Parts: sequence; structure tokens; C-alpha cells
Amino acid sequence: MAEGAEGKEREDIINDTKNRLVALGSDQAHSSTAKAALIAGVRYKAISVSMKNNLALTGEALQLALNECADEDLLPFYLTANLGTTGTCAVDCFEEIKDILASEIIPPMVWLHIDAAYAGSALVLEEYAHLTTHFAHFDSFDVNMHKWLLTNFDASCLFVRRRLDLTSALNITPSFLQNPHSDSGLVTDYRDWQIPLGRRFRALKIWFVLRTYGVNGIKAILRKHIALGETFAGWIRGRADLFRILTPPAFALTVITLAPQKRPRPRDYPSDSEVGVAPDNVLPATKSDEQERLNELTKKVYERINEAGELYLTSSLIRGVYAIRVVSANEKANEDSLRKAFEILVRTSEDVIY
Amino acid sequence: MAEGAEGKEREDIINDTKNRLVALGSDQAHSSTAKAALIAGVRYKAISVSMKNNLALTGEALQLALNECADEDLLPFYLTANLGTTGTCAVDCFEEIKDILASEIIPPMVWLHIDAAYAGSALVLEEYAHLTTHFAHFDSFDVNMHKWLLTNFDASCLFVRRRLDLTSALNITPSFLQNPHSDSGLVTDYRDWQIPLGRRFRALKIWFVLRTYGVNGIKAILRKHIALGETFAGWIRGRADLFRILTPPAFALTVITLAPQKRPRPRDYPSDSEVGVAPDNVLPATKSDEQERLNELTKKVYERINEAGELYLTSSLIRGVYAIRVVSANEKANEDSLRKAFEILVRTSEDVIY
Repeated sequence: MAEGAEGKEREDIINDTKNRLVALGSDQAHSSTAKAALIAGVRYKAISVSMKNNLALTGEALQLALNECADEDLLPFYLTANLGTTGTCAVDCFEEIKDILASEIIPPMVWLHIDAAYAGSALVLEEYAHLTTHFAHFDSFDVNMHKWLLTNFDASCLFVRRRLDLTSALNITPSFLQNPHSDSGLVTDYRDWQIPLGRRFRALKIWFVLRTYGVNGIKAILRKHIALGETFAGWIRGRADLFRILTPPAFALTVITLAPQKRPRPRDYPSDSEVGVAPDNVLPATKSDEQERLNELTKKVYERINEAGELYLTSSLIRGVYAIRVVSANEKANEDSLRKAFEILVRTSEDVIY
Repeated sequence: MAEGAEGKEREDIINDTKNRLVALGSDQAHSSTAKAALIAGVRYKAISVSMKNNLALTGEALQLALNECADEDLLPFYLTANLGTTGTCAVDCFEEIKDILASEIIPPMVWLHIDAAYAGSALVLEEYAHLTTHFAHFDSFDVNMHKWLLTNFDASCLFVRRRLDLTSALNITPSFLQNPHSDSGLVTDYRDWQIPLGRRFRALKIWFVLRTYGVNGIKAILRKHIALGETFAGWIRGRADLFRILTPPAFALTVITLAPQKRPRPRDYPSDSEVGVAPDNVLPATKSDEQERLNELTKKVYERINEAGELYLTSSLIRGVYAIRVVSANEKANEDSLRKAFEILVRTSEDVIY
């Protein structure tokens, strides 16, 4: 935008542009995007998404945010879209997002980053290949092998469409790093791909993982984890007297909340078959007082289980609903351990409720 | 600076302040400071230092830079001072620097960071304790144990005077990271001390290093490395017909350059005792053509040795002088291997010169 301008005028244009830059992400995007904006000294705007779309970023929500930016004279330059959000493993609407970004004349460029930190591992499975349909439109993509791909922490794999975009933003070559190999342009200097100068030799451990399990071995393990997640969700659905599934099970993650039905004391329990199955993904139509009470219950169950130390859970606050996240994507996960986790959840919930 | 202001006015003051921020470092500071400024979106000004002070940042040079900033209406907010620069292991003049920063009324605050990445390891030795005299005036200090303290890459130890300065700049706590332990204020959340959210468990390898060598063992190894550096410098001084020491040996680093004397062909060599000893740290009083020729010679020796692959050297460009860096701070370094390195240097230099 400062093309043609010189000296003080050029500087003013650059400063003005910098002051108006805004990074975008859905309000379900990982905190790393907000933190990156903080470090880069630019604004961050979280785009509100709705339960109606399972907390995925839709084209509609993005368009609204872009309109808001235009109204506020802000320049969106970056968007994190999610392939598996942290809270609920939602997949943003890639096709709608890329269509909107392609149709926008101003701002001229929004860097579209796909954060697939956890769920990106599922792309090794044919049944998830459809998620890659629009990858040609993305500027960068990241998956953390240490989250689900059987690799020790840390192994974060970043892919960039045009490496020069990244390297020209980060390249600083002092004399002590100049060498004929880099000068030849024939080697890849990863120091220009990242913030630190040095990097650990992570390729070997990834190689060991690939050679140890093989592609088919990895696929089998991931499919098992996903199936375990479905099994677990089935058990939860079977106890609609205690729990509600907040978002449908995705990538081996099930997000649940306590939703005890007004019913007799435990000694008068109906049999499992009588309890019935509640539909997923319907937020309890409760007044805020009632929701507050349910949140307190869920939080109490969560904290009591973590304090006991037998099972470790993580929680999330989703649209004002306190939720418990159960993930079966661990190499050692099996139906027995998951069943045990379910039983601890049931027992603790009954203790807290009654 | 935006205290009392509100809304648009406050925003303008903040933007104006941000646009005027400048990070400082001597022109011998590691490229990481310039890279950090690039990422944070602020200016970086390299302060020119002189050979007269062995390339250390002096109070005089800092004062000049601060005056320049005032003239240019810039706000210095950060300074990297070095305990062992990358190029020559120079130690900046800490006392002068802290006196100047204390005397400056505007800017009100300059964060003083000490980059002791390599040479900071020497602080385990009593004979270097005097370097810590002014540490109480520093805001942060970093030493990389993987550089000289016998630890595998990576182990960078950052010390901060007031942790809240760091954590309040980097803290972002989404719901899935909220927990009663953090809320209690009784645990240290290292995610707020660094850019990434996760971190590897490095404490154990450091513990193993400390238990394996012990404090006295580590001290003995470091002292041996430093003594080897002096020995090497002695050999170089003994071949004043070929080499010149550019800056005095420091922390096991010797920086040399080719400076062949006009003298008979090798077969007519005088004995070593006849060659005499050249003073260190005197840049050859050469015209730029002559310096160019010497740089070419040094570079040729450097590249020929690295290509041969028996010895790996690093180079540096110091005030227009191409230099070779030889460091004896390796656990496996001993007089035999260093002597061999010296002989390769002599042989290759003679080959290139004659």
C-alpha cells in the first residue's frame, strides 16, 4: 500500500496500515492465534459462531465479521480456520470460507491458515480425505504429530503454500550464518521458517514412528480410537437421565455435560432400557439460573474426578455451558479403560446429584 | 502514556507510541534481537561499536544512540547487552550501560536484557563472578546450557527480574486451560513465560548433567577449555608470519585472520623464534584493496578447510575483516585435537598463500 511513496509519507502509510491490521479466528480457535496477534502487536478479533452449526465457522459468520471490520476501518490480514477446534473438534466450513475470501476485493489478502493441530492426523484415513478438497486455497496448514500421531512431544508439522512468504518475513542472515550452501539457494534454511534460530532434530523420531507402525498400522490405531469414541458416546446416550452430549462425537472426542432429569431417587432407577436416548447437540432450553446450577454440578463432577486422580479429564466452557471432554485418542486406550472411565463418571455424577 | 485518555484518543496515543518504539543492540548483538523486533513489528537500531573497545558496547556508544533516537523522535524500550558476543565473545560495558539507562529521564523505561547465551556458562567459575556485579540492574538474562554447559540441545535458561512483566505480556487463558491450581496463584504456568503453549520436560536432562559432572567437575571442564584457548592463541601468536589475532582470546574463543608478512618463500622460513610475536587486537593498517586481498585469502583458507571436512570452522565479518573463529569449548576438545586443527590451519594457509 506504500508503493510509490517515499520517506516520511511512506512511513506514515506503513504505520497507518499496521495500526489497522486485524487477525481473525472463530471464538473456538485455539488461544495461540490471539497470543500470536499479541506478540505481533496487531489486533485480534474473535468471530462468534453458533451452536446451530456445531460451533463451526460458517461463511455467514465470516462475512459478518468482515463487514464489521470494514465499518471499523480495520484491515483483516489473517484468518485461522479450524480442522477440529479445541473445545469440540468442530470443522470450519472451508468451502464457504474460501469463497468469501476469494470474493472480497478489499482487503486484498487474508492469509488463510488451517489449524489442524489435533484432528489433522485423521487425514491419513481415506474416510476423511474429503476434508482436503479445498486445501489448494489455503496458505498454511499445521498438524501436531504429538497430539494423535503416536509421536512424542513435540512434533508440529507446518506446511506453507509459498515458502517465500514465510522465509522473507523471517529471514535475517548475519555474517556468521552466511555460507556457500545457503547462498547457492539449493538448501532449505529452516531457521527462516520459525522464530528460534536453532531447531532440534525431530525428523528421526517421526521416521521411527512411521517405520514402527507403518501406514496401515497407524490407520488401524486411529480408526480404533474413533470407534472407541462412538462406543463411549453410545454409553453416554444410554444414560440420558444423567448426561447430555453437547456436540456430536468427532475425531474420538465426546463433549458432555450433566443434565440430570427430574426423577426418583437412585434406588428407584428405571432400567437402562427405560431411560431412553436423548438427542445430541441440543442445548438444554434452560433459564440462566438453571444453567448455572447445571454448570455447578458438571464442574463439581469434573473437579472431584480430577482430585481423585484415577482419571484425568479436561473441561471447556461452551456458550455458557460448562462441559467435560473425553477423548479416546490415546495409544493405550481400549474399551476396558474407557468403560472404567464411564463408570467413574456415572458414579461421581450420581454422588454429586443425589 | 495513554493514562487518563479514553476511546479514540487513547487508541491514537497507543498507536503513536507503538510506531515510535525501537529496540536496541550493539551491531555485535546476535541476530535474534533484530528478528524479535521484526516479529514484534517494531524498529531495530544496531549501535555501532568500535575495535578500540574490542567490539564491546560502551556507555559512550549507547549515549550517542539514545541521542540519535531522541533526534528522530523514537522511543527506545529495549536493549540487548552481551556477555560474550557471537563474533568475538566481547563483554559489553555493563556498569556504563546501567548508569546511562538510570540517568535517562526520557525514555522512562528501557528493558535491559543480557544475552549470555554462550559465555554465561563461565559464570559458574569464581574468576568470572565479577561480571555479575551489576546484575541487579538487569531485567532479564539468558544462558544456553546447550552451548557450553555440557547439555544436549536445547536448554535455554531465561531469568527475569519481575516475572509479572513477562507473564502479563503473554498471558492468555482460554477456558480449557483454566484450573484451580493456576487460579490459586500457587503454581507457575510456564506457558506465560514463552511463545508456545506446550514445553518439553528439559529439567531432567539438566539434572542429569549436574549429577553426572558435579559443580567441581563442570568447573574443571570449563577451565580446561579456556586454558586450551590460551594455548591455541599462543600457537597463533607464534606464527605472526601467517596469522593475526583479531580480538584477544575470550571464553575459549580465538578470532584470527590471515595476515601473511612479505617474506621469503617457505623454504627460506626463519625459525619460529625468529618470527616474533605480533600484538593482538590491532587491525592491519591496510588500504581497502589490500584488506580485500587478505579477506579473500582468509575466506579461501576457511572454505578449503571446511570442504575437506576434517575440521569444521565458522567465520565472521568483523569491521570489514573476514575472520575465522576457533573455539575449544567442546567436551571432547584436548590439546592433541587442537594442535591438529592448528596444523591444518597452518598447512592450508601456506598452500593458499604460496
